[in-house]
Amino acid sequence: MLSKNQIKYIQSLHQKKYRQQYGAFLVEGAKSVQEVILSDFQIEVLITTEAFYKENTRLIDRQRKPVEIVSVAELERIGTLESNNAALAVVKTKENIPLLAESGEIALILDDIRDPGNLGTILRIADWYGIRKILCSETTADVYNPKVISASKGSFTRVNWWYGDIVDFLKQSSVNGSVVYGAFLEGEDVHTLPFQHSGYLIMGNESNGIRPEVEQYVTQKVTIPKYGDAESLNVGIATAILLDNWRRNVTL
Amino acid sequence: MLSKNQIKYIQSLHQKKYRQQYGAFLVEGAKSVQEVILSDFQIEVLITTEAFYKENTRLIDRQRKPVEIVSVAELERIGTLESNNAALAVVKTKENIPLLAESGEIALILDDIRDPGNLGTILRIADWYGIRKILCSETTADVYNPKVISASKGSFTRVNWWYGDIVDFLKQSSVNGSVVYGAFLEGEDVHTLPFQHSGYLIMGNESNGIRPEVEQYVTQKVTIPKYGDAESLNVGIATAILLDNWRRNVTL
Repeated sequence: MLSKNQIKYIQSLHQKKYRQQYGAFLVEGAKSVQEVILSDFQIEVLITTEAFYKENTRLIDRQRKPVEIVSVAELERIGTLESNNAALAVVKTKENIPLLAESGEIALILDDIRDPGNLGTILRIADWYGIRKILCSETTADVYNPKVISASKGSFTRVNWWYGDIVDFLKQSSVNGSVVYGAFLEGEDVHTLPFQHSGYLIMGNESNGIRPEVEQYVTQKVTIPKYGDAESLNVGIATAILLDNWRRNVTL
Repeated sequence: MLSKNQIKYIQSLHQKKYRQQYGAFLVEGAKSVQEVILSDFQIEVLITTEAFYKENTRLIDRQRKPVEIVSVAELERIGTLESNNAALAVVKTKENIPLLAESGEIALILDDIRDPGNLGTILRIADWYGIRKILCSETTADVYNPKVISASKGSFTRVNWWYGDIVDFLKQSSVNGSVVYGAFLEGEDVHTLPFQHSGYLIMGNESNGIRPEVEQYVTQKVTIPKYGDAESLNVGIATAILLDNWRRNVTL
């Protein structure tokens, strides 16, 4: 049974303001909760149905944090998912540590990706393509938004992110020498462009693309060739296709 | 001003049962309505705000169907979108005509794609890659679902579909001789596989993949290589990557 204060606290974490204030966020649903237990995230409290606890006792007992057993109705009342018959974890956010693409590494830069579903999808795609670092403009959706966590299908536990001023970041001398690819409508065809081993790929806002102040640091504009008539591709889809081309097209 | 009967009729089209009964569906939002006016779909009635009508008078007057001017509130009440300050069209569904991949043509086969958002995304991707024919199992989401139409971003006007028994379809002698690619976790690496000019690509259900009774007609299993740890890719993302590889990897 949860106390009134616990319920209030958990529900406050639906909002970014309180996630930042308390340094905590919500992980919901069976798979995401299982993955977060196995990850290096710190869990504050785990709230689970009796059924989920019984099926996952060994896993749940690994993490020695408080466990609360509740009904499905209560779980759905405190969380954000329309249906959740498994569990919810309150998890500590991580420190916002700067990231840099090392030699042989690809990092993503997100310039104002607003939609939480798109950001979650991008996390999942990054995880598929072995991308471990994502640098986000401060205007990009909050990665701790429950919709991002849910759309990432557990990949949020395997990808690192940093939020900050990406223009300042790109100005740094440490970035010099790296190729900075940017997705544009009038770039080089990625079916024929040989990619470098390491570097950055910048993806821009859903409607407006990459901002001019970011664009000036792009050293190679890239484009997905079009064979039909759709005006554009969703930014998650475009990220996937670009990373697929990067991985297969690396200069040896 | 709409009559009670008009409102009732339009709202009934939120449901598949009535879309089938009346042979009509809804197209909502500025871009989708503009595209459907320019397409070969037959519009029954166009319901628009005054502002949208003023901005699009020439376009709207091209189609000589009844136009009703309503308030934003009324538009949102009769439609399915959370916000719509533009227009809604009631449009006739098309005949369900069988499709066949011609020589030099790629067609998609969807085996039980359940999520309307995924189906809409697949329409948009197909349109980008110049795929004009999509064959859907009867259990695939209804293409006339307002969520599909909306997610397709106008591409529903440029792609043709057929719903039916895809096992029966694949049995036909007319399909013999075509390569039938199917997306599996243990197929040939699409980064190295040379694709044929024409044929079919089968995408399976979000959770269960391609059914065994469909799998038996697959002549070439294909797989997107994984470089990281995500368990899977969303079916829309996978469709996009496979079509991108097909288009670039065709045997000349």
